[in-house]
Amino acid sequence: MATKLAKKMAKKNAFYAQSGGVTAVINASACGVIETARKNKDRIGKVYAGRNGIIGALTEDLIDTSKESARDIAALRYTPSGAFGSCRYKLKGLEENRAEYERLIEVFAAHNIGYFFYNGGGDSADTCLKVSQLSQTLGYPLQAIHVPKTVDNDLPITDNCPGFGSVAKYVAVSIREAGFDVASMAKTSTKIFVMEVMGRHAGWIAAAGGLAAENEGDAPHIILFPEVVFEEEKFLAKVKSSVDKNGYCAIVVSEGVRNKEGQFLAEAGTRDAFGHAQLGGVAPVVAQLIKDKLGYKYHWAVADYLQRAARHIASKADVEQAYAVGKAAVEMALAGKNSVMPAIKRTSDKPYRWKIVEADLSKVANVEKMMPANFITKDGFHITAKCRAYLQPLIQGEDYPPYKKGLPQYVTLKNVAVKKKLEKPFTVK
Amino acid sequence: MATKLAKKMAKKNAFYAQSGGVTAVINASACGVIETARKNKDRIGKVYAGRNGIIGALTEDLIDTSKESARDIAALRYTPSGAFGSCRYKLKGLEENRAEYERLIEVFAAHNIGYFFYNGGGDSADTCLKVSQLSQTLGYPLQAIHVPKTVDNDLPITDNCPGFGSVAKYVAVSIREAGFDVASMAKTSTKIFVMEVMGRHAGWIAAAGGLAAENEGDAPHIILFPEVVFEEEKFLAKVKSSVDKNGYCAIVVSEGVRNKEGQFLAEAGTRDAFGHAQLGGVAPVVAQLIKDKLGYKYHWAVADYLQRAARHIASKADVEQAYAVGKAAVEMALAGKNSVMPAIKRTSDKPYRWKIVEADLSKVANVEKMMPANFITKDGFHITAKCRAYLQPLIQGEDYPPYKKGLPQYVTLKNVAVKKKLEKPFTVK
Repeated sequence: MATKLAKKMAKKNAFYAQSGGVTAVINASACGVIETARKNKDRIGKVYAGRNGIIGALTEDLIDTSKESARDIAALRYTPSGAFGSCRYKLKGLEENRAEYERLIEVFAAHNIGYFFYNGGGDSADTCLKVSQLSQTLGYPLQAIHVPKTVDNDLPITDNCPGFGSVAKYVAVSIREAGFDVASMAKTSTKIFVMEVMGRHAGWIAAAGGLAAENEGDAPHIILFPEVVFEEEKFLAKVKSSVDKNGYCAIVVSEGVRNKEGQFLAEAGTRDAFGHAQLGGVAPVVAQLIKDKLGYKYHWAVADYLQRAARHIASKADVEQAYAVGKAAVEMALAGKNSVMPAIKRTSDKPYRWKIVEADLSKVANVEKMMPANFITKDGFHITAKCRAYLQPLIQGEDYPPYKKGLPQYVTLKNVAVKKKLEKPFTVK
Repeated sequence: MATKLAKKMAKKNAFYAQSGGVTAVINASACGVIETARKNKDRIGKVYAGRNGIIGALTEDLIDTSKESARDIAALRYTPSGAFGSCRYKLKGLEENRAEYERLIEVFAAHNIGYFFYNGGGDSADTCLKVSQLSQTLGYPLQAIHVPKTVDNDLPITDNCPGFGSVAKYVAVSIREAGFDVASMAKTSTKIFVMEVMGRHAGWIAAAGGLAAENEGDAPHIILFPEVVFEEEKFLAKVKSSVDKNGYCAIVVSEGVRNKEGQFLAEAGTRDAFGHAQLGGVAPVVAQLIKDKLGYKYHWAVADYLQRAARHIASKADVEQAYAVGKAAVEMALAGKNSVMPAIKRTSDKPYRWKIVEADLSKVANVEKMMPANFITKDGFHITAKCRAYLQPLIQGEDYPPYKKGLPQYVTLKNVAVKKKLEKPFTVK
């Protein structure tokens, strides 16, 4: 018995958590982590997931993923959202809130956790970096690996971010379809269609809409990027010329578009936990402006969560990469790595080829990758051939979920709680 | 030669036009009409399509569909929108605008048109009925057949309307996906998701969202129907109880929801060509109300055209029925019918079976089918089992379009104009 326990203690458990806004494929990463850990049972014990992200670690609210069937874990590959719950919660620096880090160590020690897999974007990479330094600063042996995820596609080093390709595909498909619709109606009715998409600071998602315009005259005719200052007159002239030429005008607008005073066109005034402004509703603002100044009848859509949850039209490339980074994260852990992130490296455009490489987490955290200037056309309203060459492979392929009674059959896990071992509760501020 | 011409004249041409708001499958009906006419070349000459609907007939702007390849016509089956252009234009009564009807006859006579296929909703059925009476009133031999189409599902007699099933599927899939997303975020962030859908007077589309809620606690938790007067306090209490119970609340709201004064919650103030109020933006109104009164963080989406153009997630049953009514319309014409509409008759719920029957157009025009009262739960916030049994088969099956480079390959026809034969132009008011 004693030997068995010793052996079990030597074999460390893993902690996995999802952080920030979820995506259509973050669960595919979870699937990659868990399935790969299960294949290495001789070296990794259980995978404990944080219920609602890192908060689950702080409050010792852990989920025992070993209670889930192989079939349900496999179903994560085609289930959108965060199966264990996510959170918007950024750990402060070690100096500012040492108690939080000490608590993490306490929970990890109580559950014999030696691997920390954190699945998130830029803010989460920063948290993961801090945790990766704990073995040095607080003397607890822990390997922290960041698993990249963000629809914003703004992480550095990696060629692209899992989660982005599927939003990109949704946006390109949607504006193509809506473009066809408006073209039909334009003669006597709607001439303008405005679709608002996500992307606070970087225009990656808006740019993806541009993929739908493969031929002269195709929708979208105008893309409004956060990188380009919104100039009303120039914009209206472009709208008018599109209507004159094509009979209609389809527009993709990023929620992050600003005027020359630096204000968001539609500032809601509220802020999220990371201090970012919560946006929404720039589409009606742009549509109304066109109506007031040019008199065209309009329709507008705000895709919001629909775009990042749209697993039904996920990009196959994206699903595969999301799984691959999860798998690679576990392999890196097994190779003894700490403070790294599996990154995607493109090795060929045509045919599209990629591989997973190792990125130093200190070079990832707190760096936001913007769109290169040469990805936007000179007039500021569309994407260049260079941008298209970059984006196109990321939306490639379909990966349909199974359906029953006309609806996709996404899995809801049992999410069985791990028995708490610590007596004192911890309150997350 | 003379005999050949006489033979050609005896073989009448057909006119086909798309009317009103387009759908994901109206082109599947066009495909059914054209392919069936082509199979009966011995009896039907060419199919001329009206460019931009009935306006194309009035202005003698006809499209010669015989110039399109069999392959391109087949591609209409999976191409959303109206391939020949649609319009929002309602013919007045014969007494009020005799000139329009005389012009139609003039154009039809000039192009030897003996069959009139009008593909639209309730207003279009009325136009089609008026045209069907022309052979009697103006002495021109013409058979007018209405081909049903409307996302609103509000035509009488037919069990359901082609176009509706695909919107229904889009809405059910979308709210399921967004529901999963919000559930992940609810602990520390968004607790409320509001999705606005179409449906001015009838709540069919909103009801379809209810299909996603298969099990206790599933999204959507609340549906706001145009049939149910919006009561703020009752609604807020329901939102709060959902958040208390499930941690979050996903809401589907119809654009047509009204308060007890009979006003739309979000009245834009503009009206379309049929005199209907143009709506939009009730989702942000509902979301803000919840924020103000209950303090929950929210997200909202307005699907707008995306829902009715979403051919990528069309219902297979819907595509098949859309094709079938197009095919049946031609067959009815060949059987000598006039003033009829192919209608869908459900013969079995489980398994779902249906057939095409003939409906008298005079019983279709100007009758709006509302949701039966027993389709809405007593509290007014969800659908009943009866409603589910009706709706479920309509979203059944997937019918994916072909993809290339990650995007659906929809067809754009050549739309070659038929040479004009009349000298005087006609101005549409």
